[in-house]
Amino acid sequence: MNWKARVLALDGLMPAIGDDGGLVWGTLADAPEDAELCFLGLDEGKACFAVVPPKGDASPRMANPRLWSLMATLRPDDLAIYGGARSLTDWHARHRFCAACGGATKLAKGGWQRDCTACGASHFPRTDPVTIMLVEYQGKLMLGRGLGWPEGSFSALAGFVEPGESIEEAVNREVLEEAGITVRDVSYIASQPWPFPSQLMIGCHSHADSDELTIDETEMAEINFYTREEVEAALAGNGPFRCPPRHAIAHHLMQWWVKR
Amino acid sequence: MNWKARVLALDGLMPAIGDDGGLVWGTLADAPEDAELCFLGLDEGKACFAVVPPKGDASPRMANPRLWSLMATLRPDDLAIYGGARSLTDWHARHRFCAACGGATKLAKGGWQRDCTACGASHFPRTDPVTIMLVEYQGKLMLGRGLGWPEGSFSALAGFVEPGESIEEAVNREVLEEAGITVRDVSYIASQPWPFPSQLMIGCHSHADSDELTIDETEMAEINFYTREEVEAALAGNGPFRCPPRHAIAHHLMQWWVKR
Repeated sequence: MNWKARVLALDGLMPAIGDDGGLVWGTLADAPEDAELCFLGLDEGKACFAVVPPKGDASPRMANPRLWSLMATLRPDDLAIYGGARSLTDWHARHRFCAACGGATKLAKGGWQRDCTACGASHFPRTDPVTIMLVEYQGKLMLGRGLGWPEGSFSALAGFVEPGESIEEAVNREVLEEAGITVRDVSYIASQPWPFPSQLMIGCHSHADSDELTIDETEMAEINFYTREEVEAALAGNGPFRCPPRHAIAHHLMQWWVKR
Repeated sequence: MNWKARVLALDGLMPAIGDDGGLVWGTLADAPEDAELCFLGLDEGKACFAVVPPKGDASPRMANPRLWSLMATLRPDDLAIYGGARSLTDWHARHRFCAACGGATKLAKGGWQRDCTACGASHFPRTDPVTIMLVEYQGKLMLGRGLGWPEGSFSALAGFVEPGESIEEAVNREVLEEAGITVRDVSYIASQPWPFPSQLMIGCHSHADSDELTIDETEMAEINFYTREEVEAALAGNGPFRCPPRHAIAHHLMQWWVKR
């Protein structure tokens, strides 16, 4: 039997960062005795765990500016491990009770399930599908600035897939709701998990039927159309707007559009 | 003000079917006074609602044989309405309590949200992304029969996307787990909502690196490879195996593969 194990060191919900710029790992001895542990997988022959934050821990669900800058410097493999651990531990922290009966739940199956101690119902981690879409009209790309985003920051529109919708229907509805235009020829490009809190980003391309926008002002501050040259310049850091960072799928989609 | 409204008639969680073979609609007067109502949308100028099943109602989560045969006869628009209503009402029935604090929740935002009466947390309907994949090897299509399925019934392998995975990673892991082989060149084909209870089926195609299977016997009874002619014959109802029905995305994926 091999007892080698390591536990991801967290600073609240944020990753602890070592002198080498990577994630920090402790041992099982570092975890509180009554801690709920999630099994993340094996790495270099060691079982890797993350600790569910204690009850009442403040846990902001979205990525904050400090995390955004950390994400830009973490290695891709460290970022994937941290993202998976954060999604999972955040889900546990928010599901200490059974939605069916209100009873207390406890961690099961190494952290990939919670079971109700009262009615026995099993609950599973949640992943929400979200569409994020390039919308093209006469060779220009439509990009938006959400309410509350910094001046000059633009990205692709995005929205949750609702119950009863296909991916293509969700793209159509979202663009119609936020920009007031219809799209056609929706095609899939790429996907990416996004752990704040736990989304599956589904990147698509589509063609708009018009550029006469009716902007939903409860969601979006501005929506503009940009030429290929403008998007290319923005990706290089000297365009007419600021792009999403390299580790966001929107950046990848914009690169795909420019290169195509 | 227009007070025109109609309420979907249900027989438990099953759709009530009229003499014309379509869904049956009643009025708001037919709903119990304390019923929780979900707004489904507008149809022919009337607001359409569905009633959340009363507490304690037995609600089998999977489609049963009677529902499968009903689904084959309902018109596509009726099927979409019923599917959306069932997903939503089933979610409400299973989320009467707050997963964060255990308090009672109540329906909000016309049925697209539940709010906790104790801690105020908002909860949203859940949609689980599931990959379903065509796996091809040397011109043959890999199809499986799940444990407990009728003898002779085969379909594409499928599995939930787990937290931290992309669509492509989920396809790879699922095929490796269930069939013991690796795949490459995963491409997206089509998606479909599936309301039992609430899934987003994401249909993909991939190429296997081998046909030397290691079958996961806790999940699958058999996995076989079939030629294009065999799949075409099966879709026409006279092949060496029984296909999924026309309204399932697996049927659509197999037709796509045969025609390509």
